[in-house]
Amino acid sequence: MTTRPPADVGMPVTEIDTPALVVDLDAYERNLDRMAASLAGTRLRLRPHAKTHKSPVVALHQVARGAVGVCCQKVSEAEAMVYGGVRNVLVSNEIVGARKLARLAGLARQAEVGVCVDDPQNVRDLDATARAFGVRLPVLVEVNVGANRCGVEPGEPAVALAGQVAAQPGLRFAGLQAYQGRAQHIQDIEKRREAIDLAIAKVRETVEGLTRAGLPCEVVSGAGTGSYRFEAASGVYTEIQAGSYVFMDVDYKKVEGFPSEFENALFVLATVMSRPTRDRAVVDAGLKAFSVDSGMPAVQGRRDLEVQRASDEHAVLLLRDPDAPVRVGDRLSLIPGHCDPTINLYDWYVGVRGGRVEALWPITARGAVL
Amino acid sequence: MTTRPPADVGMPVTEIDTPALVVDLDAYERNLDRMAASLAGTRLRLRPHAKTHKSPVVALHQVARGAVGVCCQKVSEAEAMVYGGVRNVLVSNEIVGARKLARLAGLARQAEVGVCVDDPQNVRDLDATARAFGVRLPVLVEVNVGANRCGVEPGEPAVALAGQVAAQPGLRFAGLQAYQGRAQHIQDIEKRREAIDLAIAKVRETVEGLTRAGLPCEVVSGAGTGSYRFEAASGVYTEIQAGSYVFMDVDYKKVEGFPSEFENALFVLATVMSRPTRDRAVVDAGLKAFSVDSGMPAVQGRRDLEVQRASDEHAVLLLRDPDAPVRVGDRLSLIPGHCDPTINLYDWYVGVRGGRVEALWPITARGAVL
Repeated sequence: MTTRPPADVGMPVTEIDTPALVVDLDAYERNLDRMAASLAGTRLRLRPHAKTHKSPVVALHQVARGAVGVCCQKVSEAEAMVYGGVRNVLVSNEIVGARKLARLAGLARQAEVGVCVDDPQNVRDLDATARAFGVRLPVLVEVNVGANRCGVEPGEPAVALAGQVAAQPGLRFAGLQAYQGRAQHIQDIEKRREAIDLAIAKVRETVEGLTRAGLPCEVVSGAGTGSYRFEAASGVYTEIQAGSYVFMDVDYKKVEGFPSEFENALFVLATVMSRPTRDRAVVDAGLKAFSVDSGMPAVQGRRDLEVQRASDEHAVLLLRDPDAPVRVGDRLSLIPGHCDPTINLYDWYVGVRGGRVEALWPITARGAVL
Repeated sequence: MTTRPPADVGMPVTEIDTPALVVDLDAYERNLDRMAASLAGTRLRLRPHAKTHKSPVVALHQVARGAVGVCCQKVSEAEAMVYGGVRNVLVSNEIVGARKLARLAGLARQAEVGVCVDDPQNVRDLDATARAFGVRLPVLVEVNVGANRCGVEPGEPAVALAGQVAAQPGLRFAGLQAYQGRAQHIQDIEKRREAIDLAIAKVRETVEGLTRAGLPCEVVSGAGTGSYRFEAASGVYTEIQAGSYVFMDVDYKKVEGFPSEFENALFVLATVMSRPTRDRAVVDAGLKAFSVDSGMPAVQGRRDLEVQRASDEHAVLLLRDPDAPVRVGDRLSLIPGHCDPTINLYDWYVGVRGGRVEALWPITARGAVL
């Protein structure tokens, strides 16, 4: 079931029920503007990752500022985007299984929809499904540029798979997917640059091989919030897939260098539900209100409070100053450790500005794992 | 939005779309039966924790086997249970804030609904709301029996708060909430027993204090899957709040001793979406398909496969045997590290038996954090 919204538009922020996923609309819009400004005047296209925000409302704000469309990880995310008005979606991921391939090809009749491959049999399955639906799918070959997740190895293996794609009547070889996900969170900027330099070299080698094979590589898509300026300056990447820049989180705020231009715009509003001892307070938000895969949330503006641990519906705060004014009923804004899986716990964004609730945005791709 | 179900009733399990939250109905029913059998013939009441399963379908199976009702952590969970046919719900947690208190008192007009307290002002707020709704709420005083989360200290502080509750016309002092959550996952059975012995001593001291104060303590509620036999044998606990026993998970399966009678009945079915190298495979289930707060999932029946790491929509598997038959399109059953927050990611249980989908159960309290 879609859960009830924790607020009504127009109410003061002090009346938002908790836990709630709150967007500081001013900070959010500044983040959107900064990314747009940072790519303005270049040939680079911004294709923000919708796996972060899961909402066509946010996607359309990105498109309005120049984004070419979005990328998604799942067909069901892509459906939520297309049915929410986004006209161009890249599924930046491999799609396996007859049911999902049919949905992908069906969706490609309604909007521009691309997909990635790293396996010859998957290419054949994709081709057969595309032809059954009468579409010609743009396909990127995913290259492993150092993340060691999906993707064929750069150079010859990638060129061979691209050749196979280009030979299928239902498919169109469109370029390379080259995302170095593991580099995004390397805090040291020089080490991060080294990881991306390596990725760029792998992409360049592959593009040269494609050119020699007579396979023009129109698109090289990749990059994230932690590295996007490196790929943008590379001369080989054509699309930037950053996602977290819209909201940021504790983990990305630890990354040195340019991501610092983006502000924390996303918070889990929580209420102190217990103050049992002088050094301990408990809030009503736990593992079902924020994700802890990248560590505990921070408490905005409160260096005297530390989130020590979380259980299903509680987080225990350590009070560094036992005389700190923390009372039952007080409200605290938590900055999630990792924004993407935190957002996926909610059905609604509560957009606030000037102390008032201005918008409730449905998170229509919440739970869209299929 | 409620997500589409990943299966249809009647289809073979090989056609379930992935990732899907799958219940082995035979194992699940054996778990229900074993817990019921283990408390049969005692004066103990089973009040299973619905925060685990989030579904009135499961709750009613528990009630059919003798459970007195369920407990919940949130008012919205309690609403889902009552509106799904459960007649007796304890909110085993403190509820703070006018909106939530109103919903709690309103719900108490429709079913037997109790709640916990650990704060004098909260007691006054609860009383005022109960009176406004014309109900008399049964209230448990939560005692800190060693988990150091919510709860007043045992003995005199608990007795004082109980006295305050008993003096409110809108409230009825019903007993103690005494859950030692941190003891549940102590793997060594003797250390676990020591932690629970300490909890039992704190409860006993408090019950004696209540008796001296003329405050009869009808209910002592607590215990979990890892410790329930200790509380059951204590002579002071009257209600068992175990939740995870219905499904189990990797973490609880590491706990020595009696929880081993319960079987893994819950799985995240995933598909191999990439097999890029001899020692690596990638499945289509990640941080949005299982929770990693208690560690990575295990692969059922496959000691040759280890889940190394997870990102939003991927898990990377290490193949201990590079010749292992793992191909793109293969399906694997992952046992979640922690069942409760994993279930909270899904809208549907896919119940399977004999290789066929037998039931789709809606997880109506998914996302119910308010």
